[in-house]
Amino acid sequence: MSNTEAFDLIKRGSVEIIQEDELMARLKTNRPLRIKTGFDPSAPDIHLGHTVLINKMKHFQDLGHDVIFLIGDFTGMIGDPSGKSETRKPLTREEVIENARTYEQQVFKILDPKKTRIEFNSHWMSKMTAVDMIKLAAQTTVARMLERDDFEKRYRGGHSIAIHEFLYPLIMGYDSVELKADVELGGTDQKFNLLMGRELQKSNQQAPQVVITMPLLEGLDGVKKMSKSLGNYIGISDAADDMFGKLMSISDDLMWRYLDLLSFRSTQEIQSWQKEVKAGANPRDIKIRLAEEIVERFHSKEAAKKAHENFTARFQKGQMPDEIPEKIVTVESSGIRIANLLKEAGLTVSTSESLRLIKQGAVKIDGEKIEDATRLIAAGSEHVYQVGKLKFAKLKLQAK
Amino acid sequence: MSNTEAFDLIKRGSVEIIQEDELMARLKTNRPLRIKTGFDPSAPDIHLGHTVLINKMKHFQDLGHDVIFLIGDFTGMIGDPSGKSETRKPLTREEVIENARTYEQQVFKILDPKKTRIEFNSHWMSKMTAVDMIKLAAQTTVARMLERDDFEKRYRGGHSIAIHEFLYPLIMGYDSVELKADVELGGTDQKFNLLMGRELQKSNQQAPQVVITMPLLEGLDGVKKMSKSLGNYIGISDAADDMFGKLMSISDDLMWRYLDLLSFRSTQEIQSWQKEVKAGANPRDIKIRLAEEIVERFHSKEAAKKAHENFTARFQKGQMPDEIPEKIVTVESSGIRIANLLKEAGLTVSTSESLRLIKQGAVKIDGEKIEDATRLIAAGSEHVYQVGKLKFAKLKLQAK
Repeated sequence: MSNTEAFDLIKRGSVEIIQEDELMARLKTNRPLRIKTGFDPSAPDIHLGHTVLINKMKHFQDLGHDVIFLIGDFTGMIGDPSGKSETRKPLTREEVIENARTYEQQVFKILDPKKTRIEFNSHWMSKMTAVDMIKLAAQTTVARMLERDDFEKRYRGGHSIAIHEFLYPLIMGYDSVELKADVELGGTDQKFNLLMGRELQKSNQQAPQVVITMPLLEGLDGVKKMSKSLGNYIGISDAADDMFGKLMSISDDLMWRYLDLLSFRSTQEIQSWQKEVKAGANPRDIKIRLAEEIVERFHSKEAAKKAHENFTARFQKGQMPDEIPEKIVTVESSGIRIANLLKEAGLTVSTSESLRLIKQGAVKIDGEKIEDATRLIAAGSEHVYQVGKLKFAKLKLQAK
Repeated sequence: MSNTEAFDLIKRGSVEIIQEDELMARLKTNRPLRIKTGFDPSAPDIHLGHTVLINKMKHFQDLGHDVIFLIGDFTGMIGDPSGKSETRKPLTREEVIENARTYEQQVFKILDPKKTRIEFNSHWMSKMTAVDMIKLAAQTTVARMLERDDFEKRYRGGHSIAIHEFLYPLIMGYDSVELKADVELGGTDQKFNLLMGRELQKSNQQAPQVVITMPLLEGLDGVKKMSKSLGNYIGISDAADDMFGKLMSISDDLMWRYLDLLSFRSTQEIQSWQKEVKAGANPRDIKIRLAEEIVERFHSKEAAKKAHENFTARFQKGQMPDEIPEKIVTVESSGIRIANLLKEAGLTVSTSESLRLIKQGAVKIDGEKIEDATRLIAAGSEHVYQVGKLKFAKLKLQAK
């Protein structure tokens, strides 16, 4: 592959490359580049949103570069020393190792284990003295730190920022110095921290790493960021049928987005599919290809085939009436919880009935059983809802 | 001495006691309190301004308390890691020890060496790990830190504050935790750092120390803070004659201030002198008592007597003409440099002539040879100036 082709592959789906010319210059050296990607040690249960970064690591790996899966266990083991955050309890060494194993099992479905370096930042950070920490802290300024979006908002809003929170981005940046990273990948929400790596490398006489930010993947609703707490996610340990069904439930727009960020099909191939659809092909058939690829990745070729068959049987072979009443429901632009939607649409008489029926497994969206009663349905979406054996409705959600 | 008398002695000359009731409560425990005073390891050459704090330590020592002379060598040995401050070069271990010895020689002219504990904060700080530092940093907030006057001004003014500068007050505060200080003494400019000790003691389950701030002593001009760079100081290693002469040159107002902050005469005795002066006594005689006490403290009783005699001989016994012309000079309220004053008063034809004559030792104030051409003369002062052998003038400086 030429350097230009490699560059294009790396750029695919990315939001920003800082700086493009630096990336090109490094590619031209023809040596294996050190590609750093940091992961939180406390959340080893990965969903498709997390794989956007891992897929980009895979691109680099396929191009022959040295990908480093960095587990930020040092700060994880400290937790929140101010004791204010319940959710940031310190992790023990054992928990970190256990979480790392789970990560490995999940991540090596995408990356080649033989070519992937796994590092823990406690390796160098736990040797650091207070003096080292002070010297590290001397390398940037309060004003620079308060430029970070969330810090700035909290400071202006009068919400307290503990001083140690200023040290964490420095530690993340210092990891790049320690690893001599050529490139660091991260979500757009990590941009500030990634740039900190550039800054610290410069003050440590290293060429600053190229920063590549990847978008935060939208969840099944197509609007909000994929996340467990919003219930709009596909876990990579989800059962094959669930995974397939959830992927078939996404909008056509979202399908193209997912193909861009989640598929390993070539850009050329995906472009040819877009032409097909424009010429009249059913987007549903493309969606099936996406669903099969993803299920195959996390399960197997056979499992993907079977999931496809099961889906077709469930969805297409007469489990739904031919004529489904359509209805437009006006909702907030932020969407609506499934339980409320059912009541609004008259499919249930109350939210509590909705909740009870969801609990009993009696509610389906596009033939897919709903388990999460808090699931948010996006404004603009259009799905077939089934309550019990007989009630069906195609609900079109319109933002107020 | 009763607790109330002890309290009054401690309060003498102080600017603020946080909190007075807490101090009284600790005095009532009748156990020796731990009195912490921190000193900069890089400036061992002490002038009378520094002794204001040491004198307060002496009060506590005389009352039977445990005074701790804390040398903040830990941060001194780091210097300014951002490399921006030329003046904060890192000190070596040897330099710190050498400076500490100089401190001892000077300080033990006031404090009793047998009853004074000398501590270096590197003793505990150099054992601190990065993790400990992070935990320490978690104990306060960015907003709290930016409340500090100078930080706030710099932040608003767009002048950079390196992150490690936020760590230094924390370290100073932590010293109080480590020493389990009951009381910390400091200049008014240190108030923020002293309060940090209270905060950190609270979060470490200790009763918060009582903070006592002492004023920054005015220099010989009676206006600006005594400092080497302003040339308005009396070094405690100054020769006896110099010390005596400089003290005799201060204004009457400043004399009462110095008596309050520098003399170990009892408050009652000083009050009785004030009554004498009101009744017509010459303040000059009181000034002689002050000068003798201070010279005796840093030299000896004999040296003080001799300095007094020399001063009288020089000043009173005919080395000046009987009739000295008087002149009023209008100056800025901040005072005027001696070289400029001489020109303004017509005693020289130009500032550069003033400078040359000062350099030659041909300029005297109240019979005292001037060596520092940058010496600032305060508005409101009244002295006899002599230039060469023949030019004399009594100059009364009036603020514009």
